[in-house]
Amino acid sequence: MKSWEKNIRKVVPYVPGEQPDKPHMIKLNTNENPYPPAPGVMEALYAFDVDRLRLYPDPEAKPLVEALARKYGVDPEQVFVGVGSDDVLAMSFMTFFNSDRPILFPDITYSFYDVWAEEFRIPYEYVPLDAQFKIQKEDYYRENGGVVFPNPNAPTGELMPLADIADILRHNQDVIVIVDEAYIDFGGESALALLPEYENLLIVQTFSKSRSMAGIRIGYAIGSKELIRYLNDVKYSFNSYTMNQLTLSLGVAAVEDEAYFQETVHKIVTTRERVKEELRGLGFVCGDSRSNFLFVTHPRLSAEKLFEDLKSEDIYVRYFRKPERIKDYLRITVGTDEEMDKMLDFLRAYLYAGA
Amino acid sequence: MKSWEKNIRKVVPYVPGEQPDKPHMIKLNTNENPYPPAPGVMEALYAFDVDRLRLYPDPEAKPLVEALARKYGVDPEQVFVGVGSDDVLAMSFMTFFNSDRPILFPDITYSFYDVWAEEFRIPYEYVPLDAQFKIQKEDYYRENGGVVFPNPNAPTGELMPLADIADILRHNQDVIVIVDEAYIDFGGESALALLPEYENLLIVQTFSKSRSMAGIRIGYAIGSKELIRYLNDVKYSFNSYTMNQLTLSLGVAAVEDEAYFQETVHKIVTTRERVKEELRGLGFVCGDSRSNFLFVTHPRLSAEKLFEDLKSEDIYVRYFRKPERIKDYLRITVGTDEEMDKMLDFLRAYLYAGA
Repeated sequence: MKSWEKNIRKVVPYVPGEQPDKPHMIKLNTNENPYPPAPGVMEALYAFDVDRLRLYPDPEAKPLVEALARKYGVDPEQVFVGVGSDDVLAMSFMTFFNSDRPILFPDITYSFYDVWAEEFRIPYEYVPLDAQFKIQKEDYYRENGGVVFPNPNAPTGELMPLADIADILRHNQDVIVIVDEAYIDFGGESALALLPEYENLLIVQTFSKSRSMAGIRIGYAIGSKELIRYLNDVKYSFNSYTMNQLTLSLGVAAVEDEAYFQETVHKIVTTRERVKEELRGLGFVCGDSRSNFLFVTHPRLSAEKLFEDLKSEDIYVRYFRKPERIKDYLRITVGTDEEMDKMLDFLRAYLYAGA
Repeated sequence: MKSWEKNIRKVVPYVPGEQPDKPHMIKLNTNENPYPPAPGVMEALYAFDVDRLRLYPDPEAKPLVEALARKYGVDPEQVFVGVGSDDVLAMSFMTFFNSDRPILFPDITYSFYDVWAEEFRIPYEYVPLDAQFKIQKEDYYRENGGVVFPNPNAPTGELMPLADIADILRHNQDVIVIVDEAYIDFGGESALALLPEYENLLIVQTFSKSRSMAGIRIGYAIGSKELIRYLNDVKYSFNSYTMNQLTLSLGVAAVEDEAYFQETVHKIVTTRERVKEELRGLGFVCGDSRSNFLFVTHPRLSAEKLFEDLKSEDIYVRYFRKPERIKDYLRITVGTDEEMDKMLDFLRAYLYAGA
């Protein structure tokens, strides 16, 4: 090691997922939305005055914060925005999880929680999901430095009822509880209803899934004014100007088109339910996903081999080598009906051919 | 304090500078470029396919990294990009300054260095500038946990010769030395020439000043492959997808128009030198700024009062209440010739009127 290397923060490098870019690929590996952003987004793009780019954006991201506050019926002081929900979650870990006691999250969950904990030197413990890949609320009724879980959970897609989340909050009033609702719009009930009762609840959502804008990088948190103030204090001391001028304009346009949002979410949910049944008909086992992906296994197939065989047909899904107990599962994003039909055709032929 | 507040990271909230937005204001307070972005930026905006926003951007920000590598004649593996140079610097502090010994930076300098040190609990010491507001290289020849300074320095505008930077590097081979070159394009010599010799040197630049794109949020670092790899490891474990699709497209267009870049920088430098002389003619004292701002004082005027009086005419400049020894100074961004003439007219009348 060179002498100047000794004070460097060394982390096990997180390797971002594959982002293939082939002309005719079917990309079902990163839970993107198959439909384009709302029509107003394109209008906002063409209406944008490029000269404004020479000026710093509003550090408070007011137009976007206010549009979100209107949409969710909360005060603008209850809304925090960041560069994707990863940015919001990273800032939240840094702000809220400064205890010597471990934070708790599921053993099978969003793969970034332990990465942030490692990066920020936050003690943590995995809480195993039960055999049906469900979160057992009682497992979170113990001393900890904070709680975080997605609802619906990823990559399982399993939804926790709001009453269970309320119970977790009731047993965790001394720490911050983060509910990561990246996929909530696809059929879950948001914990927003619990906000008036719990000042220590932070809800995180994103434009990357239900709003078809993974490429714009907008995430947001909603919580009590106090939590949001603490979060903004840390954020302003890190980077005051995170949301660029274009992001603000296009983000507002996306939030304001409620009808398009409902329509595309409905299409994805309809496709998901149909594909769920068709996959079951082919012998796949899958839970009751309420997200924009399916988490499936097949008693006669190797998930890893199927993943590779799909890839060689330019159909990209997601395979997780670990933890051990999901090594026979694939996560498949819900695409358009046409994309799903192509995948189903492939699977039918694959199963007949001999597996 | 509520029970859930005890594990929260509490920072003295950094208050972002004023961003007034009045129709006829003269905005000389945040060192923005008075000229619009390169014409190619607008073309890239209109050519952008909005449908691409539904997909995650390239986490490696390859097109932008490669355009910068070509421009500076370095390997793409030597380039790191972030959401403005604040993001790049914050990540760099987090990655490189993990010593028990204090990091060193000037007492009068970019106001974010101590904010980041506080936020990340990094020990630090202010190194006083000399009476002419210059960095004395010898002050950095002692044990420390890292060194960071802007060149030219802000808000003074004073440039350090490359030979002095080389001397600082020679005396600091056990730590990381960050040279923050936000303003280098306006008349300084970049430390890029020192890179082959010093693997522990990190150079940080931005699109916010010389590229007229404060509103797009692009900053970048250039260093040895090893430093950039460490920085990327930390960044990927924080937020993999920071640079959005539009930012990548528009950023590349800005880098590629070298002629426009040279032309606007030249205009600003010409205006700066003229205004420098005119201000001196009015009795102002100012150093030899090599940036896109002037740092001035007047023996007969209160800087704070002048700041307020300019503001009431919708001419916004920057006043720093602290540290004490710059409380009689104003920092004035170099705007268009027309904007500077209006400000000079005001100052002439102001001085005659009786101050």
